[in-house]
Amino acid sequence: MVSLSSPNLSQKVEQTLAQSVQVTKAASIELAKLSTQAKNAALESIAVALEQSAEMILTANQEDVRVAQAEQLAAPLLSRLKLNHAKIAAMVAGVRDVIRLDDPIGVRQIDRELDRGLILQRVTCPLGVIGVIFESRPDAVTQITALAIKSGNGAILKGGSEAVRSCEAITKVIHQALSDSAVSPHVVQLLTTRSEIQAILAMEKQIDLIIPRGSNQFVRYIQDNTNIPVLGHADGICHLYVEADADLAMAIDLAVDSKTQYPAACNSIETLLVHSSIADAFLPKVVAALRAKGVEVRGCDRSLKICPDLIPASELDWSTEYSDSILSARIVDGVNDSIDHINTYGSKHTDAIVTKNAEIAEIFLQDVDAANVYHNCSTRFADGFRYGFGAEVGISTQKLQPRGPVGLEGIVTYKYRLVGNGQIVADYTSDGSGKDAKTFTHIDL
Amino acid sequence: MVSLSSPNLSQKVEQTLAQSVQVTKAASIELAKLSTQAKNAALESIAVALEQSAEMILTANQEDVRVAQAEQLAAPLLSRLKLNHAKIAAMVAGVRDVIRLDDPIGVRQIDRELDRGLILQRVTCPLGVIGVIFESRPDAVTQITALAIKSGNGAILKGGSEAVRSCEAITKVIHQALSDSAVSPHVVQLLTTRSEIQAILAMEKQIDLIIPRGSNQFVRYIQDNTNIPVLGHADGICHLYVEADADLAMAIDLAVDSKTQYPAACNSIETLLVHSSIADAFLPKVVAALRAKGVEVRGCDRSLKICPDLIPASELDWSTEYSDSILSARIVDGVNDSIDHINTYGSKHTDAIVTKNAEIAEIFLQDVDAANVYHNCSTRFADGFRYGFGAEVGISTQKLQPRGPVGLEGIVTYKYRLVGNGQIVADYTSDGSGKDAKTFTHIDL
Repeated sequence: MVSLSSPNLSQKVEQTLAQSVQVTKAASIELAKLSTQAKNAALESIAVALEQSAEMILTANQEDVRVAQAEQLAAPLLSRLKLNHAKIAAMVAGVRDVIRLDDPIGVRQIDRELDRGLILQRVTCPLGVIGVIFESRPDAVTQITALAIKSGNGAILKGGSEAVRSCEAITKVIHQALSDSAVSPHVVQLLTTRSEIQAILAMEKQIDLIIPRGSNQFVRYIQDNTNIPVLGHADGICHLYVEADADLAMAIDLAVDSKTQYPAACNSIETLLVHSSIADAFLPKVVAALRAKGVEVRGCDRSLKICPDLIPASELDWSTEYSDSILSARIVDGVNDSIDHINTYGSKHTDAIVTKNAEIAEIFLQDVDAANVYHNCSTRFADGFRYGFGAEVGISTQKLQPRGPVGLEGIVTYKYRLVGNGQIVADYTSDGSGKDAKTFTHIDL
Repeated sequence: MVSLSSPNLSQKVEQTLAQSVQVTKAASIELAKLSTQAKNAALESIAVALEQSAEMILTANQEDVRVAQAEQLAAPLLSRLKLNHAKIAAMVAGVRDVIRLDDPIGVRQIDRELDRGLILQRVTCPLGVIGVIFESRPDAVTQITALAIKSGNGAILKGGSEAVRSCEAITKVIHQALSDSAVSPHVVQLLTTRSEIQAILAMEKQIDLIIPRGSNQFVRYIQDNTNIPVLGHADGICHLYVEADADLAMAIDLAVDSKTQYPAACNSIETLLVHSSIADAFLPKVVAALRAKGVEVRGCDRSLKICPDLIPASELDWSTEYSDSILSARIVDGVNDSIDHINTYGSKHTDAIVTKNAEIAEIFLQDVDAANVYHNCSTRFADGFRYGFGAEVGISTQKLQPRGPVGLEGIVTYKYRLVGNGQIVADYTSDGSGKDAKTFTHIDL
């Protein structure tokens, strides 16, 4: 790894990096013109090459795993790092899933005559070059590569240092597969040193979107250190609200699934809100069910009166994403109270209500300000694959589009193309000379 | 105006402002639920009230104009500030134009069964509260108010200090008109002091989008001083490229219109690129036509050999938006050279080619990285009204959507609503127990 303490050396790295990012940018301009067929053929070559090179990839991965074990990498990271034949088969299947997705490029969204012989079209096109920074998972390389090629974008990838040998092996396979295809191998570039992250965050002219995949802290660091647009979310503070009339057995199942099915996921709940009129009956039961799954429950003052053995929750708890088997519980006095709590402390990710009353559900779905609002189901459904998007770029908690689970649409934009035969605006403007200004026809074709 | 030099006083202003922005936010949540009919009825009330209150508005405006004249406000600003009966009629017509636009809220973009009894819908919804900061034009108040109400958003407006009496009079008319409608007058709030701009730029929790309308410098200042998303563009460096086979008479007409029809507009060209093989014949003619319209022409070294009396252009000229009757000219060696120049120095706004060759035009339209790419027409067509969008929020030069001229879609987002009957994710996940995981049906309804 290049040390940043030597300014000359780091400057040299940045220059070389700028040149190679420029090569990816140039390759992406050619990729943008390829047909769906050509892009799919290149993806199929990658799928076949991955199947044929499984042993080589696994050998490289074993060395990463050996070093990671020696360095005592945390168990969850180690399990994400470790590849096997089943995971490689899943990577291959993932590439073929992207082949089956509709081509998001070249879609004509508007086709309109502004006046005779003056035709406006709005057509989807790639963003350009996307930078994706991810942690230990080496299978992210094939997934991002497939999405980038399908959407006509160049991709600059930076994986975690613990997965460097695996990522290099997979990238080598991808480059070899692409060398016989219509897609230039330069469209995909793997970075391997941490100093290169800093450098690409400053490349506003070359890189059009940054997608960070990792911890909240990591995403926030990226957001705070670049002027390039960032797709992702820092926080996932999700809620489940149980109304007075809720089916309590259902509410317990939903609370347990939303909290424990994968506690580290962004769509897991951090806070359970309970209507005061059912708190006596419901709270002890749901606490018991959660504790049986190893969850630590913290409670508000009113909750503590019902379940005195809860850990007292502080104000800070309501805005904390535990990403762990911890849940805070709060008693509220109805749906509007629950909405106020969620809109105050939530992160606009995913919030759910349990109720039999359709009108109350509608108030909740309407007034909660979040990308995903649910009625009588687990918050864990907030996911591009479960929504049927085929592949997911990430989940966005910004309010502007794209919002929520984002598929290929997140790495696609559009252009307005206007074709005329010499039209000038002066003719459409009254100049006071008494000559009539031309008018627009605005006919959709 | 409150001075920022007194910290206690400014803190107090911010507290009061935060409270009143909160009132607008609360009103916007109710506005979001109103029917198209209710919103249109409120807009019609505003249109009628504006007609009836024309004299009162004109009286307030005359006082603004008197003060502005005494303070020697620049002539173009003064002309934008000055209202008359025709301008008020145009404001009324503008409100009624927005009534005729389709309601952008409640559009169901996705309606999908994920599994039996588990239904996903993606439905458009308002952003929440938008902050619009504009300069002298008092008619912006009615335009923004109409767009905000139609799209279900609250609006915090800050006009230029020179228009304060006019803006207050118009806002008073709007508030009175709304007080008898289903829309709360609190959805529209006018700020009148400069210190309030700083305060609202920090209100990330309350304000969802900032739309600055003004000079490039002003827009850049806003972009650099807020974490709230900003819709707008700082630069408009647009180009016209004249190919070897261009109809030279058409090319001269397009150059003159693109530069002189409104030199201060963002979609006016700053640089003319000319193919070297026609430069001898074309350049003297186009320079003469531009000079006849009062344009100062600056040229590259090669241009100076053909037209020695041009002002020499420096490297800085290629990346300067003159916003004035100045144009730089550069000779290039073909379409790819022109694309390189544009992608290096342009601002991704609007760029045009003049050619009879459809293949060369296609290369230009495909490879130039800009929101608007044109063939044989003036760059001045880049405008929401000319595109038939009815009303324009602004023009965006970012690559992510919304891009180019932005209509109502720029102040609308969507939510994913998922309704089930107790579904949990654990049932759709293989737990290794041998029990089959449920699968998604993913049927579009």
